[in-house]
Amino acid sequence: MQRQIQFFYFIGSTYSYLSIARAESLAAQAGVELIWRPFSVRTLMREQNNIPFATKPVKMQYMWRDLERRAQKFGVPFEGAPPYPIDSQELANHVATLAAREGWCKAFTQAAYQAWFLHKQDPGTTDNLSRILASIGRDAPACIAQASDDRTKREYLESTERARQLGLFGSPSFVVGSEVFWGDDRLEDALAWCKAS
Amino acid sequence: MQRQIQFFYFIGSTYSYLSIARAESLAAQAGVELIWRPFSVRTLMREQNNIPFATKPVKMQYMWRDLERRAQKFGVPFEGAPPYPIDSQELANHVATLAAREGWCKAFTQAAYQAWFLHKQDPGTTDNLSRILASIGRDAPACIAQASDDRTKREYLESTERARQLGLFGSPSFVVGSEVFWGDDRLEDALAWCKAS
Repeated sequence: MQRQIQFFYFIGSTYSYLSIARAESLAAQAGVELIWRPFSVRTLMREQNNIPFATKPVKMQYMWRDLERRAQKFGVPFEGAPPYPIDSQELANHVATLAAREGWCKAFTQAAYQAWFLHKQDPGTTDNLSRILASIGRDAPACIAQASDDRTKREYLESTERARQLGLFGSPSFVVGSEVFWGDDRLEDALAWCKAS
Repeated sequence: MQRQIQFFYFIGSTYSYLSIARAESLAAQAGVELIWRPFSVRTLMREQNNIPFATKPVKMQYMWRDLERRAQKFGVPFEGAPPYPIDSQELANHVATLAAREGWCKAFTQAAYQAWFLHKQDPGTTDNLSRILASIGRDAPACIAQASDDRTKREYLESTERARQLGLFGSPSFVVGSEVFWGDDRLEDALAWCKAS
């Protein structure tokens, strides 16, 4: 069986922008399959009283600067801080859950992050979401309806529960077996662990 | 003038253990002078309502595991989680402030971290501090007295104020000019920035 990394992420996580741009090609180079797993890190953060930036302006200011430097280092475009926080109803994350089931999760998530980071649009509003879905050739009204149905809601909750069981607390998280690597800056460690195990 | 990095740290910061073991030799290889700057990250964290682990058991458990893996990667000894938190009166950090003034900061800080991480002793108690100071050939009672005098207290406050002005919020932080790099995992980025600037 091909080696796998479960890539847990939340559309709304800032550093996940780097992983969404980098992880797939690095995994492919390493011969590792990347399983995209949208989950509600917001739910876990609330449960754990873990608020990384919203109430911490000094840390938040650093985060944007650090993200800018890291993006430059990796050749990922960065146009200044985008709106934050986003996707208040977690609608974009529900669409990602639908997309994960149907096999177009990577394309959708990359388009959502592009809209967010480069066009400064909240991918969680119906209008923006519709444009994003159309840009990747999807039927937006149908996708948005399906994203809100019981099956998708249940799958999103299940993914979040899996993350809870694994001891996750942040996004992105890379999981190799039961070994957890948190943060875009642990992507290379996760890949090395996966190749060695 | 030789290139410099200001290495802001707090004895009591967990990930700083890795930097205290790694930073000096990496800086030397890069031809960069490392200026050791003990400061009260605890004061800044309280001001900023930034509690990284004490109230977050899930994140804390991950931190110890991540630290263990990173230590293995760098060949730094790790013997399981040491007591945490430590140095409730910040006495070890005041001694480090005295040591920074007198030129033995690196030796003291490394000995303090060894006691903490490898012998599982809180370096902030007078007994443990006395042993640590004796082990590096220092007159423990004299050092502890000086660490509590007004001059040392003022210097510790000044270092903390410098950190506040720079926008620091965590330990370790590496500062190149006004550019801040937070975390042991940004040490290499800080060195690269320093060499390129």
